[in-house]
Amino acid sequence: SGKSDHHPPELFVDFPVSVVLPAGGTGERTGLQTPKQFCSFLGRPLISYTIQAFERVSWIQHIVVVVAKEKMDLMMDTIQSFRHRKVRVVPGGSTRHRSICNGVLALGEREEERPKVVIIHDAVRPFVEEDFLYKIAMAAKELGAAGAIRPLVSTVIATTSEGYLDHSLERAKYRASEMPQGFTYDVIYQAYKRCTESDFEFGTECLHLALQYCGTNAKLIEGPPTLWKVTYKRDLAAAESIIKESLSRSACVITGGLAQAASLAEELQKASLDVELAVVPDLKGDNARYLFKEWNFIHVSGSRSPLTEVEAVLVALQEENRALLHPVVVIWVRLSSTDELSISGRVAEPAAITDLASRAKIRNILLYGIQLHQSKDAGRWEGSVSRVADIASALIRERSPALVGQLLQA
Amino acid sequence: SGKSDHHPPELFVDFPVSVVLPAGGTGERTGLQTPKQFCSFLGRPLISYTIQAFERVSWIQHIVVVVAKEKMDLMMDTIQSFRHRKVRVVPGGSTRHRSICNGVLALGEREEERPKVVIIHDAVRPFVEEDFLYKIAMAAKELGAAGAIRPLVSTVIATTSEGYLDHSLERAKYRASEMPQGFTYDVIYQAYKRCTESDFEFGTECLHLALQYCGTNAKLIEGPPTLWKVTYKRDLAAAESIIKESLSRSACVITGGLAQAASLAEELQKASLDVELAVVPDLKGDNARYLFKEWNFIHVSGSRSPLTEVEAVLVALQEENRALLHPVVVIWVRLSSTDELSISGRVAEPAAITDLASRAKIRNILLYGIQLHQSKDAGRWEGSVSRVADIASALIRERSPALVGQLLQA
Ligand SMILES: [Mg+2]
Ligand SMILES: [Mg+2]
Repeated sequence: SGKSDHHPPELFVDFPVSVVLPAGGTGERTGLQTPKQFCSFLGRPLISYTIQAFERVSWIQHIVVVVAKEKMDLMMDTIQSFRHRKVRVVPGGSTRHRSICNGVLALGEREEERPKVVIIHDAVRPFVEEDFLYKIAMAAKELGAAGAIRPLVSTVIATTSEGYLDHSLERAKYRASEMPQGFTYDVIYQAYKRCTESDFEFGTECLHLALQYCGTNAKLIEGPPTLWKVTYKRDLAAAESIIKESLSRSACVITGGLAQAASLAEELQKASLDVELAVVPDLKGDNARYLFKEWNFIHVSGSRSPLTEVEAVLVALQEENRALLHPVVVIWVRLSSTDELSISGRVAEPAAITDLASRAKIRNILLYGIQLHQSKDAGRWEGSVSRVADIASALIRERSPALVGQLLQA
Repeated sequence: SGKSDHHPPELFVDFPVSVVLPAGGTGERTGLQTPKQFCSFLGRPLISYTIQAFERVSWIQHIVVVVAKEKMDLMMDTIQSFRHRKVRVVPGGSTRHRSICNGVLALGEREEERPKVVIIHDAVRPFVEEDFLYKIAMAAKELGAAGAIRPLVSTVIATTSEGYLDHSLERAKYRASEMPQGFTYDVIYQAYKRCTESDFEFGTECLHLALQYCGTNAKLIEGPPTLWKVTYKRDLAAAESIIKESLSRSACVITGGLAQAASLAEELQKASLDVELAVVPDLKGDNARYLFKEWNFIHVSGSRSPLTEVEAVLVALQEENRALLHPVVVIWVRLSSTDELSISGRVAEPAAITDLASRAKIRNILLYGIQLHQSKDAGRWEGSVSRVADIASALIRERSPALVGQLLQA
């Protein structure tokens, strides 16, 4: 994940916690054909990002995804493509509450696997973090129920039946109820057992059922703004930008031991404002760790270095299956050694890099080339280095599949 | 504007309407240094997009922007850079109501210019449309006050003083109060004249003041989801994606009368799914209209055609100052006439296009090149055409300034 570089202190949960993800919505509000949880960005459907958010939490045991019957196959394919573990798919009911109830019952089927706490979350809120899930799980265990709240963003007003302002609510006294919510298995099971057909049909708020049918007053916990729900098409763009940003914070520069490359890396570090660079001669030994964690590689080589060095990086990334969840960017910066254009190089290399890039793209690795002409003119050289920084930073931020295999000129 | 291609029936308003745009917020919620109304995307601050939304409405007379004293210069620069007319800048007060009141008073200074209706809007809601402003203005004139509402996105709950669930509101009975709102000048003026210091200090809802101090029950009108408020950093990405999409719906293909270019254009039309192409031999006579309305140009030329043809398009665009509000994309597609690579062309042209592109970029025109190798092999040719379509469509959607001047290979 884009966030897996953060290493918060390990949170310890000594009781079983599982998750129900209702994902049966039709998404008519996005203005898109596909329900929003199945809309993709960076090559992966939204729901897979949400599943990943739970899967990476060590103390979460099972994730039950509840989907409409006609989406079962699509969901199974998604799980297989992105190698999700922990996940079981069950068919949804005709309303949100019926779907959640199906998920809860599925978690309880085998008594010995029944969780102490069930977390309910929306498939379209992919940015939930472990520390907040921890707060919800602990409060739910202690008090029976807990839910995320957020401050109201707009004034809430009551309207007359004719569509006029009746009165406005005092904003400070109210909160928006969001997801995730947590319940002990007993509370959520009993709430659904006791509630009416009308609750199943028209109800929206699980916390309300816990209060009404189990007498459990949920603990309300203020969540971060990242809990927001992907509702409109614009929210998909927002979600994509958050993931892209998380993938663009750093890059690993491989110099091949070349003195010129090391000094270029130094210049790049000065010129590139927003990407943190780690500079290494190669990815051997201790430096192999970058293969496991870095999303961006800048491979600098001299004009006579064969493309096979870059190919080796691609092979290593493929062997790790590093680009399973997010595209990995590899930028080959080719230093040409004279002020003149090396005609033979310019003509021969583009075809080779195009070819290599098409093969890497299949494995979700995006290869681009930048040709950098060395110059003894200091001003000219500075200009070129700053262009390499601009181009590399744009390639890393945009991750455009259409531009792979290009040899760009700095 | 990206939306100016829509030509809705002219809406007729026979009374003076002016606008107050409070833009004094500090934007601490975005997590950005700059208040969000001054954050830029595609080279222009958010507030300029909002001003433009009002400026293009023929029946709106004046726009008073209320900004913090320390932002007055920045705001004046913005108005000058993007040649906004209709706009006056006044200093804000210490609270939102004091700022709006300053704006209302500024509109009323000269009795003969006093508007019948004042529309109040947020600087951070750039996507307001003329038809909705029309509804608000008409209802405000008739009833004294009118405001935009939206359905609640989350359940609203009341909390106990200890942070537990007290009860949840019945969602159907309540609405979120949004912007724009409209008032007759008399109602909003009297409301501010009569309200208390405490209202000025702690109040948030203008509709509430109109009710309390003028007995005016505002008409509530359901607005579109595009009225949403740019609040977080992710919302800036969402806003940028909406503008980019509106700029990417069509392109004008200039063939230079070349038969090969016309057949390429036909192939491109089949291969490019999401951009509508208009194919013309040149931009003369009636076709000059594209210079005034199109945001994307694809200029196809043979390998022997000089770059001066593209230069002429750039000059014409500059003369129109077409890229004042949004970057214009020009893609030069260079057809090479043989299967072999034309070495002399490949080496000479990149420098020339780089140079041309740097000059155009200063005027907000983004020039890119695509080299297309003609082939007698049908499969190969088809592959190349489909790559041109992919690359062109990515360049048009992404509008990346870092990649201008590149000659990409299809
Ligand atoms: Mg983690
Ligand atoms: Mg219009």
